[in-house]
Amino acid sequence: MDWDRLYASRMRDVVASDIRERMKLLAAKQLIHLGGGLPDPDIFPYEAIAAASNRIWADRAVARTALQYAPSEGYGPLRAWIAAYMTGLGAPCAVDNILITNGSQQGLDFVAKLLLSPGDRAMVEIPSFIGALRAFDAYQPTYVGLPGGNPTDVKFCYAGPDFRNPTGTTMTLAEREALLDMADASGMAILEDGCYERLRYDGAPLPSLIALACARRGSVEAAPVLYTGTFSKMVAPSLRIGWIAGPAAVIRKLVLIKQASDLATSALSQMLLLDVVEAHLEETIATACAVYRERRDSMLAALAEHMPHGVRWSRPEGGLYIWIELPEQIDATVLTQRALEEQGVSAIAGAAFYPRGIAAERNTLRLSFSMIPTEPAREGVYRLGALTREMLQSSAAVTAISTA
Amino acid sequence: MDWDRLYASRMRDVVASDIRERMKLLAAKQLIHLGGGLPDPDIFPYEAIAAASNRIWADRAVARTALQYAPSEGYGPLRAWIAAYMTGLGAPCAVDNILITNGSQQGLDFVAKLLLSPGDRAMVEIPSFIGALRAFDAYQPTYVGLPGGNPTDVKFCYAGPDFRNPTGTTMTLAEREALLDMADASGMAILEDGCYERLRYDGAPLPSLIALACARRGSVEAAPVLYTGTFSKMVAPSLRIGWIAGPAAVIRKLVLIKQASDLATSALSQMLLLDVVEAHLEETIATACAVYRERRDSMLAALAEHMPHGVRWSRPEGGLYIWIELPEQIDATVLTQRALEEQGVSAIAGAAFYPRGIAAERNTLRLSFSMIPTEPAREGVYRLGALTREMLQSSAAVTAISTA
Repeated sequence: MDWDRLYASRMRDVVASDIRERMKLLAAKQLIHLGGGLPDPDIFPYEAIAAASNRIWADRAVARTALQYAPSEGYGPLRAWIAAYMTGLGAPCAVDNILITNGSQQGLDFVAKLLLSPGDRAMVEIPSFIGALRAFDAYQPTYVGLPGGNPTDVKFCYAGPDFRNPTGTTMTLAEREALLDMADASGMAILEDGCYERLRYDGAPLPSLIALACARRGSVEAAPVLYTGTFSKMVAPSLRIGWIAGPAAVIRKLVLIKQASDLATSALSQMLLLDVVEAHLEETIATACAVYRERRDSMLAALAEHMPHGVRWSRPEGGLYIWIELPEQIDATVLTQRALEEQGVSAIAGAAFYPRGIAAERNTLRLSFSMIPTEPAREGVYRLGALTREMLQSSAAVTAISTA
Repeated sequence: MDWDRLYASRMRDVVASDIRERMKLLAAKQLIHLGGGLPDPDIFPYEAIAAASNRIWADRAVARTALQYAPSEGYGPLRAWIAAYMTGLGAPCAVDNILITNGSQQGLDFVAKLLLSPGDRAMVEIPSFIGALRAFDAYQPTYVGLPGGNPTDVKFCYAGPDFRNPTGTTMTLAEREALLDMADASGMAILEDGCYERLRYDGAPLPSLIALACARRGSVEAAPVLYTGTFSKMVAPSLRIGWIAGPAAVIRKLVLIKQASDLATSALSQMLLLDVVEAHLEETIATACAVYRERRDSMLAALAEHMPHGVRWSRPEGGLYIWIELPEQIDATVLTQRALEEQGVSAIAGAAFYPRGIAAERNTLRLSFSMIPTEPAREGVYRLGALTREMLQSSAAVTAISTA
């Protein structure tokens, strides 16, 4: 059977991503994981979820709803809760402005499915979240970089304003306003990735792009922004509950995509999640922030202590990631390969985060501080620093020989 | 904001399906539901799921796995269980031949995403499952009908050999072999919808297309078939657990699609489901079959009692549906609309089940016997019969006048 002949052209270029590799590395427990961006399972609200679960099984009427198909739009009470939550974040939403998705990854896929035809222009921050790039790739866009790219005929700009994956950087208020100006002038939409918005460890929260657009336009109905959110990082990933917020007419289109894609998200997951967030969301966010803040601080201190001169890194105010720029003569793909094989430390070379058709900065890498405690993480940074120093010295020696 | 201008061309023709309407009708409890094909929540294994849930929350190590991201391929022990299950159904599979999906709907979407470029030919049974058609539509195929269509340059043929939605009809062994012959001769793939395979109430089980292909080719690796299965009808829909079985090389491609679409299916749902099916699958299938067999028998008897001369219907050996052919002068869209408004009975006009570009038989409708007990179902059939008789008499009167 010749399957290759049957594959759609769009599938030819699709390759395994580092996310997949990350999952596999989980199995190898002896590694120091600075690569994956998984939340730490120590902070999941087990008791709250178990109690919610008991409440469902104790009441047959509730249990029937939990095991039957949910509406494609999502479980009504959860949609209402998220609408109120978005309103609290400055983007007034009603139930019809919310579609429940399987994590925010499904939201990114759906928006690309709705908007992109092959060859359409999609603007993305450079570098960008690998999961978003892989979702968009299936619809064969031409990528345009932000900042600097021309917004003419761009369908949407994908942006993560708060401590985004992979750089950990935050857009200033002026940058947010400028991006909205660009959308207003060009007619493009904005796809805002809000997945880290609440994981802020320092500084005052800035309004999201959708909140600023609601303020400008008077209503979410006139806003050019679709916002994807998720409870994966705030509560637990495996409930697989995210959402898209946006104008009701666009949400109605996205509901049709949801229906054709997997009919509905689990009612059980939605009901468990709602029970937990109603009583415990702020507390679980506070726990996560306390744990991750300490890990970020420790990793930043370790980088300052162990990295050789010439290495630079971001200082994120939240999220899970630090972005490293090595001296230009170091190829981070080689460094991360050697770190894994020789030092037992995982990190992800930055090249993975650049879209097709846009040249990667090969001297970059992404570290995550979310998954492991401060001590092994410091040890991991120490080993990465030593390896970087060694590679710099080899490179200097080669340069010395070739100049001699 | 002009969103219409931004939508991809593929989204222009997408319209709300009857599945959506079915969901809404659930809210109107006073109706007699012969339209929806939802499983009856009375037969869900509540105690088994609650016990499985308690086991997860009682063991922190298990609970950590249940709440963290699962691998994109699926939870290993569940993949292994399904591989053994498929082997037991005559299609020897290993773990690498199985991808876990959110119900079989997601499997249908993924296979279409893998294989279809705009304008590619996709063969479907006429009429066909509406959820499959809506999934395929997003990739803009040209439809070819089965039987009768030309398989040249067809990417895949979508077929439901057992009591398929909407007709309730079953392919004979000779028809199955002929379809495999056609695939062998033309090089097309077969997408087998196995979602009702185990819901058989009479007669001996027939081998699935994938089982027959494994026998012909010696191994699933050489089979031209991808099989989609689901626990939605056998256990409970809202765990949202289905699977695709097929050659490992194709499954690897589909895993990349899963990753880009929603990263992974809920580990919690997969662990709950595995616990239930390990001990209780055959018992839950037996319960479902006993309940649905009685409802099918009762509905067939009611049709014989109440339908006027000239109405014909299928006699399904399993599944959830009966397909009705009315006399040609009756438009089932009018009948179902009047049944809903005047009689409080839901049924789905057959036109919904025909693909784009292929003319619908407008005198057909689908009834489901799954959702309500025998007595209200008999009352519903009585009302539909009376309405049909009235419409036939009006039509005869009109004919008499116009001939006069």
